Amino acid sequence: MNDIGLYGLGVMGQSLVLNMAGKGYHVAAFNRFDYENTTLRFIENRASSLPVTGYRNVEEFVSSLAKPRKIILMVTAGKAVDSIIEELTPLLDKGDMIADCGNSYYKDTIRRESTLKEKGIHFFGIGVSGGEKGALEGPSIMPGGDKAFYEHYFGRILEDMAAKASDGRPCCTYIGPDGAGHYVKMVHNGIEYSDIQNICEAYFLMKELLGMNNEEMADVFASWNEGRLNSYLIEITAGILRKKDDNGNYIVDLILDEAGQKGTGKWASMEALDMGVAAPSIVESVLARCLSAMKQKRLSASAIFPKQTCPDIPEKKQYLKDLECAVYASKIISYAQGFALMQEAGKEHDWNLDYGKIAMIWREGCIIRAQFLSRIKDAFEEENLSNMMVSKEFTEDLKTCEPGWRRIAESAISHGIYSPVIVSSLLYFDGYRSPVLPANLLQAQRDWFGAHTYHRVDRPHEESFHTKWE
Amino acid sequence: MNDIGLYGLGVMGQSLVLNMAGKGYHVAAFNRFDYENTTLRFIENRASSLPVTGYRNVEEFVSSLAKPRKIILMVTAGKAVDSIIEELTPLLDKGDMIADCGNSYYKDTIRRESTLKEKGIHFFGIGVSGGEKGALEGPSIMPGGDKAFYEHYFGRILEDMAAKASDGRPCCTYIGPDGAGHYVKMVHNGIEYSDIQNICEAYFLMKELLGMNNEEMADVFASWNEGRLNSYLIEITAGILRKKDDNGNYIVDLILDEAGQKGTGKWASMEALDMGVAAPSIVESVLARCLSAMKQKRLSASAIFPKQTCPDIPEKKQYLKDLECAVYASKIISYAQGFALMQEAGKEHDWNLDYGKIAMIWREGCIIRAQFLSRIKDAFEEENLSNMMVSKEFTEDLKTCEPGWRRIAESAISHGIYSPVIVSSLLYFDGYRSPVLPANLLQAQRDWFGAHTYHRVDRPHEESFHTKWE
Repeated sequence: MNDIGLYGLGVMGQSLVLNMAGKGYHVAAFNRFDYENTTLRFIENRASSLPVTGYRNVEEFVSSLAKPRKIILMVTAGKAVDSIIEELTPLLDKGDMIADCGNSYYKDTIRRESTLKEKGIHFFGIGVSGGEKGALEGPSIMPGGDKAFYEHYFGRILEDMAAKASDGRPCCTYIGPDGAGHYVKMVHNGIEYSDIQNICEAYFLMKELLGMNNEEMADVFASWNEGRLNSYLIEITAGILRKKDDNGNYIVDLILDEAGQKGTGKWASMEALDMGVAAPSIVESVLARCLSAMKQKRLSASAIFPKQTCPDIPEKKQYLKDLECAVYASKIISYAQGFALMQEAGKEHDWNLDYGKIAMIWREGCIIRAQFLSRIKDAFEEENLSNMMVSKEFTEDLKTCEPGWRRIAESAISHGIYSPVIVSSLLYFDGYRSPVLPANLLQAQRDWFGAHTYHRVDRPHEESFHTKWE
Repeated sequence: MNDIGLYGLGVMGQSLVLNMAGKGYHVAAFNRFDYENTTLRFIENRASSLPVTGYRNVEEFVSSLAKPRKIILMVTAGKAVDSIIEELTPLLDKGDMIADCGNSYYKDTIRRESTLKEKGIHFFGIGVSGGEKGALEGPSIMPGGDKAFYEHYFGRILEDMAAKASDGRPCCTYIGPDGAGHYVKMVHNGIEYSDIQNICEAYFLMKELLGMNNEEMADVFASWNEGRLNSYLIEITAGILRKKDDNGNYIVDLILDEAGQKGTGKWASMEALDMGVAAPSIVESVLARCLSAMKQKRLSASAIFPKQTCPDIPEKKQYLKDLECAVYASKIISYAQGFALMQEAGKEHDWNLDYGKIAMIWREGCIIRAQFLSRIKDAFEEENLSNMMVSKEFTEDLKTCEPGWRRIAESAISHGIYSPVIVSSLLYFDGYRSPVLPANLLQAQRDWFGAHTYHRVDRPHEESFHTKWE
C-alpha cells in the first residue's frame, strides 16, 4: 500500500512527489489528464528509482492508499479544487484526509473544511512556499486543519519534506484550524510583495539618483547580504544584476518594467482593509505593480510631465549607508504590518496563532527566508506584544535607522523617484507614534454633515456628543 | 392613489418623504415597526400639512399606490433590504418598481436586480448623498437600473427631489444598468474620504509646523474657499474651527482624534485593489482612519519613539501658498484615481458610464460638492481620455502646483508629520509620469524564484522569456 497520494502532476506536484519519495515514502501519483504524457513520462524520467507508482484512474489511485488515506492536492486554486473534492469524496472513508497545498483563498478553505467535516473527512489547507526548487528540496510549509489528525498522521511526513533551518528544525509547524494555514501563506506573500518592492526602490534610487552601474549595485547588495539584510531576495538581486546573456548584455536591462502578479498580495491587502488593519507598505507594493503595468500610459504621461532635474546630488558613501537604514527600517515596518494582520485575524477567527513559531518556519524554504526572522520570534516572546514595531527587539534599530531613512525618503520626494514602500513605511511609523492626529477635525466634519457624533478628550469614551454646528 | 411609497422612516427616509411631498407628490409612508411612535408621530409633527399618508400594515401601504407602483426603500444596507424585498414581492404586480436608496454594496444590487427581473419587477439601486439636510432640501442622486423604466416613471420624481446646480440643472442623472448607481456612490464616498483627509493634513501641518491657532487656520480655509478649492468641505472646516461651546472653548480641540467609518471608503479601496486600479490617495485616507482609531497604541508608541525636533521652520507666507498648491494637486489626483476606478468598472461591467455627467451631478447636494466638478466635466470632453490627470484641463494646474506640492511633502517627511494623502498623491504622480520604473528587477526576481517569465524591451510583447539564473 502507498503511504500517501498526490493529485496533480504540474511542476509543483512533481517536485512534492520527488521530495516525499526521496524521504522513503511510497507515493501514489495521479494526474487528471494525459496519463501517458504526464504521469508515465514523469515516473520514467524523474522517479524511476524511487518508490513512486502512477495510476491511470482515480479509483485505483485511491484504493492503493493505506488507511486512513492521505491525499495531497496540488492543482490550480479555485474551481478545480472543488471539482476534485467532489470526485474524491465518494471514494473515501470516514477518517480519510485531503490536504490542499495550492494557493487557495482561506475562506474557500474554511468552507471546504466545514463541508467535508460533515462527511467525516478531514480537510487541511496547507500553504507551501518556495517555488519549484523549494518544493523539491524542502519548502516552508504552513498547515491548517484538525490538530489531532495533523499530529497523528500528517505532521511527520510534512516535517520530513520541509526545509530545515540552521538549527536543524523543520520549517513546518501546525498553524491552526481550518483556513489558518492558507491565511498565513497569504500574509507571507503580502510581505514578499513589500520585500521585493523595497529592494526595487533601493535599486531605483542607486541607479537614477547616484547613476550607479549594475556591477556597482550588485556589490552593494552583496555587501548588504553579509549584514542584517541577509536574505534570499537580497542574494538573488546581486546575482540578477551581474547576469549577462550570450552577447554580453546585462539581462536586467533587457527586461520590460511591467510587473506581473498572481493575486495573493492583493488578497492580503484587501483583507487588511476589510479588517481595518493599516498595512500601507503591503498595499503600496501591490499598487506599485499596478502602476508599473501601465507602461504605455506612463510613457504618454512622461511627455506631458517631464521630470524636473533636482541639482542636489547626495554624497554617495553616506547615501548608501542611509539607504541600507531605509531598506532595513522599511522591512521591519512591512513585517510589523503583516504580523499585525495575523494578530487581528487570529483574534477574529479564534485561531490561537503562535507568531514566534510562524516566524521560525519562514527562516528557510520560502521566498522571504532570512535569519532576520529569528529576531521576530524573539520579539514575540514579549508578553502581549501589541505590534512588532514597539518590541524591545526592534525599537533600537528603528531609532538608529530613523535619520537616514528619513533622508532617503526626502531625497526620493525631492528627486521625484517613486519609492512608495520606503516612503509609506516611514509615514506609518510617523502616524503610529503620533500621540495626536488631526482626526478630531475629521470627526467634526462627519458630525456636521452626517450627525455621526464624536467622543471628547475630557469625557469617558462611552459618551457620544453631537453639536449643532450651523 | 399615492404617487409613490417610501419604506423606512429613519432620519433619511423622513427627509426624503418631506422632500417629495414638498414637491407636490402624494407619498405613502411606511415603517416596519412602531406605527404609533414612528409613522404617526412623524406625520403629526412634520408632515401634517403635506400630502403624506401613513400606513399601519404593508398590504395597505402597497395597495394605496398608483400602478405601476413605485416604492423607495430607505433602510440599513444589508439583510434588511433582502427581507423587505421578500416581504414586498408577493404584493406587487409585473411592471412595479422598487428603488433601494440606501448605501448598498453594488454586487448586492446586481444580484437583486437580476432576481427581481425574473419576476417582472424592476429594481433600481440608487445612490443618495447629502446626509439628512441634503435628503430634505435636495441631495445628489445616482440612479442605476432599467433605463426605459427610469425615464418613464422614476426620472421626473427623482430629478424634482434632487439638488439644483447653479445652472438650474438637477443633480440627478441616469447612471447605468443594475449596480452602476451604487457603484458610483461608493466611488463618491472614496473620494470624500480623501477630500476629508487632505483637508485634515493641511490643518495638521498648519497647527503642528507653523503653530497657527484655530482662528488663523479658519481664515486660511475661508480664503481658500474663495478660490479654486471652493467647496462644501472647505467651507464647513472654516466653520468648525471657529465654533466654541458655551464655556468659550473651541469644540474642535475637545474632540477625540479617533476617526470612525461606515465602510464605503473601504469598499472603494478594496474594489480598486481587486481590479488592479492604483488608487493610493483613497486607500491611504482609509488607512489613516484606521491608524487614528488606535489612540492607545499611538500613545504608547509615542513614548517609545519621541519625535525628533526639526529646526527648519519654513517661512509662513510661502508655506501657506505651497500648502494650497499641495491640497489642490492632491485633490486633482484623488479625483483622477476615483474616476479611473469608474472608467475601469464601466468597461468591466459594460455600463457605458458618462463621466462628465457624473461630475455634473456632484456639483450640488452631496458631501464633495464643488464648482471644481464642472472642470472635470470639461476634462472628460476630450475623446478617449485615459486619465483625468493628463487632461488638458488639469495639466497646467499640476505643473504649476508641482514645486510647492513637493516642498510640502518634503516638509511633512522631514518634520515627521503624518500626511499620507498629500504624500501618496505626489508619489502616484511621480510613478505615473515615470517612463521607467524598477519593475524589470522585480520581474527578474519572479522569474528566478518562480519561473514566471518576462517580456523584453527589444522584443514584441507577445513573446515571453525565461532565464536559467543560477
